[in-house]
Amino acid sequence: MKILVINAGSSSLKYQLYDMTDESVLAKGLVERIGMDSSIVTHKPTGKAEVTEVSEILEHTTAIRKVLGLLTSPEHGVIGSIDQIEAVGHRVVHGGEYFGESAIVDSDVKSKIRQLFDLAPLHNPASMMGIKAAEANMPNIPQVVVFDTAFHQSMPEHAYLYAIPRVLYKKHKVRRYGAHGTSHDYVSLAAAEFLGRNIEDMKIITCHIGNGASITAVKNGRSIDTSMGMTPLEGLMMGTRSGDLDPAIVPFVMNKEELTVNEVNSMLNKHSGLLAISGISSDMREITEGMQNGDANSKLAFDMYEYRLRKYIGSYAAVMNGVDTIVFTAGVGENSVVLREKVCENLTYLGVELDKELNEIRSGEPRRISSANSKVEVLVVPTNEELVIARDTNRLVKGLKS
Amino acid sequence: MKILVINAGSSSLKYQLYDMTDESVLAKGLVERIGMDSSIVTHKPTGKAEVTEVSEILEHTTAIRKVLGLLTSPEHGVIGSIDQIEAVGHRVVHGGEYFGESAIVDSDVKSKIRQLFDLAPLHNPASMMGIKAAEANMPNIPQVVVFDTAFHQSMPEHAYLYAIPRVLYKKHKVRRYGAHGTSHDYVSLAAAEFLGRNIEDMKIITCHIGNGASITAVKNGRSIDTSMGMTPLEGLMMGTRSGDLDPAIVPFVMNKEELTVNEVNSMLNKHSGLLAISGISSDMREITEGMQNGDANSKLAFDMYEYRLRKYIGSYAAVMNGVDTIVFTAGVGENSVVLREKVCENLTYLGVELDKELNEIRSGEPRRISSANSKVEVLVVPTNEELVIARDTNRLVKGLKS
Repeated sequence: MKILVINAGSSSLKYQLYDMTDESVLAKGLVERIGMDSSIVTHKPTGKAEVTEVSEILEHTTAIRKVLGLLTSPEHGVIGSIDQIEAVGHRVVHGGEYFGESAIVDSDVKSKIRQLFDLAPLHNPASMMGIKAAEANMPNIPQVVVFDTAFHQSMPEHAYLYAIPRVLYKKHKVRRYGAHGTSHDYVSLAAAEFLGRNIEDMKIITCHIGNGASITAVKNGRSIDTSMGMTPLEGLMMGTRSGDLDPAIVPFVMNKEELTVNEVNSMLNKHSGLLAISGISSDMREITEGMQNGDANSKLAFDMYEYRLRKYIGSYAAVMNGVDTIVFTAGVGENSVVLREKVCENLTYLGVELDKELNEIRSGEPRRISSANSKVEVLVVPTNEELVIARDTNRLVKGLKS
Repeated sequence: MKILVINAGSSSLKYQLYDMTDESVLAKGLVERIGMDSSIVTHKPTGKAEVTEVSEILEHTTAIRKVLGLLTSPEHGVIGSIDQIEAVGHRVVHGGEYFGESAIVDSDVKSKIRQLFDLAPLHNPASMMGIKAAEANMPNIPQVVVFDTAFHQSMPEHAYLYAIPRVLYKKHKVRRYGAHGTSHDYVSLAAAEFLGRNIEDMKIITCHIGNGASITAVKNGRSIDTSMGMTPLEGLMMGTRSGDLDPAIVPFVMNKEELTVNEVNSMLNKHSGLLAISGISSDMREITEGMQNGDANSKLAFDMYEYRLRKYIGSYAAVMNGVDTIVFTAGVGENSVVLREKVCENLTYLGVELDKELNEIRSGEPRRISSANSKVEVLVVPTNEELVIARDTNRLVKGLKS
């Protein structure tokens, strides 16, 4: 079965075409600047030359038509006809309390995604544009939605509720939802497989540390707590997001600086985090370089970032009454040797013992970076959210047919 | 030396008179409803009958005059003359970055306390009224100020800064200050004394759990992190305060419910916490009773409260790369057998082993509640913030004279 995976943003659309017989990627690419006069399509067919095209793509339906054209073109294509695509899997950021797992799209599913626009005003409308555009181009092909929040729906009430008036949960569904669920799900399973252990017996802490960052306590294969909250602002310090904050600072700053609700949101989401503290960059590579060149602000940004990550690891060890495996993933988690080293240096009380040589090795494969004596396995597991979406789509569509 | 300790609120004034030769309390009491037509003074002289008087006390100067009258009265008094009081110690909530320790009041100190009105708009003006009232009644007696924040001024930058634009720290001093500093200071020292250990070699987590609640990582005798932030809203779930929250919830709720800055502050500080979740009470005794009678909302409130406390203990173990002593103090911490039991049950990964029988014992003395085999000492240490204020006042005033 060939499955097209789509991740639609408000002005962008990422895609990957999978052959599920061997889970290989036949092609992948990105449409940028949708709705602007010079949109850019970057198409990477496996085994063929990458191609970039600039044209006018005013909305998502045209973007997908363009992608389908490239996938089937004699020169850049990888399949003979659109009919070979048997299903489309969509990434959707917010599934609210409706979706504890992936779902085949029907009118009810679409209505629920629309009801969640309020909770994810930037993301869910874009996902809906992607779904509609795929339906318009491939009207008879099943569409599947895979939610960033679904993996975390297993959290218990005492972990997902905030200690605020309960009417806010009843009326506006204010609670913790988390994010990066497909990634936490994927890397926790991959870690268990790598260790040859049964995930049902494991206490895993998964650290998805990219530009956005979240950390999850995965007990017996289920998410029981995660650091992102109602929105992706809560939790760890990130590239441009503040993460945790005294909530009283929000009204204090609005008052002092005469900021509107939108302005304070923008400040906390786009102008905070590593960028605000370093004054240089939101990118951990540049922060690390700055630190190594003696820049005090970069060092402070790094120290805060590491410190807050370590605090969450400690907190989630308490959540599960122990931890047997810590997994690092995503851009920073997979690549920052120094971050992993500094975090592990101060976790020896848990029995963590890093192998510094193993930690230096770079590879695209799951790997152990703790020593043979370490009581806690520390792993680096490259994440693959698109593969989770393809697998879930495959599974649900096969279920349809059986 | 006899020292009067004063804790002034906007409409109340607590006092204790100490004889520092043996640190005994000669009398203590409370003036309530200052500024209202029927103010109440409750005066408890040691060894004599308690007395309650109702009268008109319109401001703090009159309140202190009333207190001094009672302290020296033939019937209810404990000293012959006001002249026997050699110093006054005042509790002040916010010392900002000016005060890393207690100070003798002079015009510079008063000016700094005034500059901090912005950061503690409810508390510092009340403290200032207490100071002025004491000066007016006892013009030639040294006044000392002891700050709730001072003990936490040893926190490193990476622990006290928030990951938001740095201009907010420069312009408005937005950072973590913490609170309950005199209590965390006192119980950590008392714990070291009780164990016969040198605090310089210890990793202590102090849990001050009262109606307000905060937790501190005390490494080598110094506060290196604490859960309350710029304001006392951040951190643990409390009687009526939310504690930690996705900061994005604040603007979201303001928008949805059309709340002003004051209204959202009031919601998070006065109508959240145990009260909001249980729907019954902000008092842990009533929550526990409700839970034991099968009330689901009380159980949820308890579970959230315990869970969040445990997460912080785990987090602070990571902050110090281990913990050797956990101290419970203040109203809930000293008295809630079931809270301590539930927290410790899930900390066995740290080597915590509670002795359930010891945990049941009620006493006003410092005591161990962990078993002989526990790798972490768990103690209950009754707090005594007034005694810290009296001791600091004594020390500074002796310094003045020498």
